[in-house]
Amino acid sequence: MDIFKSIKNAYTIISRVANVTPVMTSRTLDSITGAKRVIIKCENFQRTGSFKFRGAWNCISHIPIVERERGIIAHSSGNFAQAVALVATILQLKATIVMPNNATPSKIQATKGYGAEVVLCGNEPGDRAKKAEELIQKYNYRLIHPFDDNSVIVGAGTTAYELMNSIDLIDLLFVPIGGGGLISGCSIAAKGIDPRVKVIGVEPKNADDAFRSFQLGKRVPVENPNTIADGLRTSVGELTFPIIQENVDKIITVTEEQIIDAMRFYWERMKLIVEPSGAVSLAGLLSGNIDPSLIKNRRIGIIISGGNIDLSDFFATLKLKLA
Amino acid sequence: MDIFKSIKNAYTIISRVANVTPVMTSRTLDSITGAKRVIIKCENFQRTGSFKFRGAWNCISHIPIVERERGIIAHSSGNFAQAVALVATILQLKATIVMPNNATPSKIQATKGYGAEVVLCGNEPGDRAKKAEELIQKYNYRLIHPFDDNSVIVGAGTTAYELMNSIDLIDLLFVPIGGGGLISGCSIAAKGIDPRVKVIGVEPKNADDAFRSFQLGKRVPVENPNTIADGLRTSVGELTFPIIQENVDKIITVTEEQIIDAMRFYWERMKLIVEPSGAVSLAGLLSGNIDPSLIKNRRIGIIISGGNIDLSDFFATLKLKLA
Repeated sequence: MDIFKSIKNAYTIISRVANVTPVMTSRTLDSITGAKRVIIKCENFQRTGSFKFRGAWNCISHIPIVERERGIIAHSSGNFAQAVALVATILQLKATIVMPNNATPSKIQATKGYGAEVVLCGNEPGDRAKKAEELIQKYNYRLIHPFDDNSVIVGAGTTAYELMNSIDLIDLLFVPIGGGGLISGCSIAAKGIDPRVKVIGVEPKNADDAFRSFQLGKRVPVENPNTIADGLRTSVGELTFPIIQENVDKIITVTEEQIIDAMRFYWERMKLIVEPSGAVSLAGLLSGNIDPSLIKNRRIGIIISGGNIDLSDFFATLKLKLA
Repeated sequence: MDIFKSIKNAYTIISRVANVTPVMTSRTLDSITGAKRVIIKCENFQRTGSFKFRGAWNCISHIPIVERERGIIAHSSGNFAQAVALVATILQLKATIVMPNNATPSKIQATKGYGAEVVLCGNEPGDRAKKAEELIQKYNYRLIHPFDDNSVIVGAGTTAYELMNSIDLIDLLFVPIGGGGLISGCSIAAKGIDPRVKVIGVEPKNADDAFRSFQLGKRVPVENPNTIADGLRTSVGELTFPIIQENVDKIITVTEEQIIDAMRFYWERMKLIVEPSGAVSLAGLLSGNIDPSLIKNRRIGIIISGGNIDLSDFFATLKLKLA
């Protein structure tokens, strides 16, 4: 399968249904890093607040009608849940999302708000898949995988395709890695447009399975991922790993502190709400783990994957102060 | 003086020095309000994080060189301080900013960061002006007024000028009111481009001097403004009030709760960091204080004035959780 060609084709449709998200720049960031220009692709402005909408749309809209009319099911604690819920609503399908009972209440609420039925399950590693399997047996639902699916990878890849088509060529592209769907699609899209671009994957040090797998040349699963980047706690997939091996130039890791500092830069200096998982790519650029000569005077692309973060406490505190 | 013509002329230069800020839309907002389209002008993405940069630039860059080389001075607890500091740095002038000793530490830090000398003073009503006067007597500095100055009003007006030139016509424009500089310039710019547009000023109920002055037909100062919208605690100016009387169609007020709810909408749903003062315009649209027939199926413009808010506590808490 020629994935680049699929991304190109998929984009014609996706650009009409998804938001064409803006790119942002910051003089301060250029001056801190020494880059010629840092160009930030803001998928926090995507529908449902993350890039996941692209893959969910591309996957679900290609399922034959007879098959999808039985209903679709996905398991996710966060962004993919919301994306599948909205796509199903747009396509007038029934969607069931299995979510762990410790998922953020605001994310459960949002998923219901987009029109899905939420089924809670336990929060042990195997619980979600087991509950989903149970429901599939019973209702014959079609399972949608959050990243280990070609059409989801193609959809995610339209992020970099859209970025690269909207700006002049870049030298380096930083992309977060969780299950690897985003970086698989984006590395293919970026190199399809310009083979000279180098793609850097960034992962939390506390969930560094992709980093270790890349070094070892074989997949090792993540163990006890303890990172604030809740979207990146997953292990890299069976389908995504070989794509990463072929197309990604380097994987680097960042500390929890570096993730929070990058997030703070977005919030305070750029006025952008970015979630921890979405900020790891900038954390990677700022980490010092990349040879400065690759950054100085270069054009750098950064992908923000999403901006969904629970702010209930923050606003509750603000309101309390009114009293 | 033909202010509209001045705005038009000023914009040629300002559009090169300031950021041309993006407009944002939200399907959710359109559906909540019943508007055809709500179009949000994001001055939180302006240099120094607020529209103030436009007026500061237009004012300071027009002061004769011999006069400005003596140094400039301004008193402000927030956004204007940062704007004057950056403009002075760009124009290679010495800037002194008088700030009350209870100003937010992050705003003092930012003002210094943009290159100004900060002189602290007491926080009683007359303290800032007195300290500035003292320094002017001593050093012959040129005072820059944050809003009651024609060239500052003209600069602020380029916000609406830029908005109206980048989109199709709108029916209604919501603008925050503090000292009145922003709404003075914006109402002239908006009606200069399309005389049919209605301009709505929005003020915190807890600092409603413009609302009361507008009703009474004469200026009454604000008393004990106790609002979270720190940029709107000022009373409307001598110069701005008659412009408001002539060009603004209605002034409405919003509660502290409504301001926080609007801010929350921006942060959670639109992923935009907006400060309380910047969120009052949306709070006005959502308040129910405007006849729904003026909103339904109409095109509504909303101006976000800025996004500078102290997030030290938020990020300190996040980092504490790491330990």
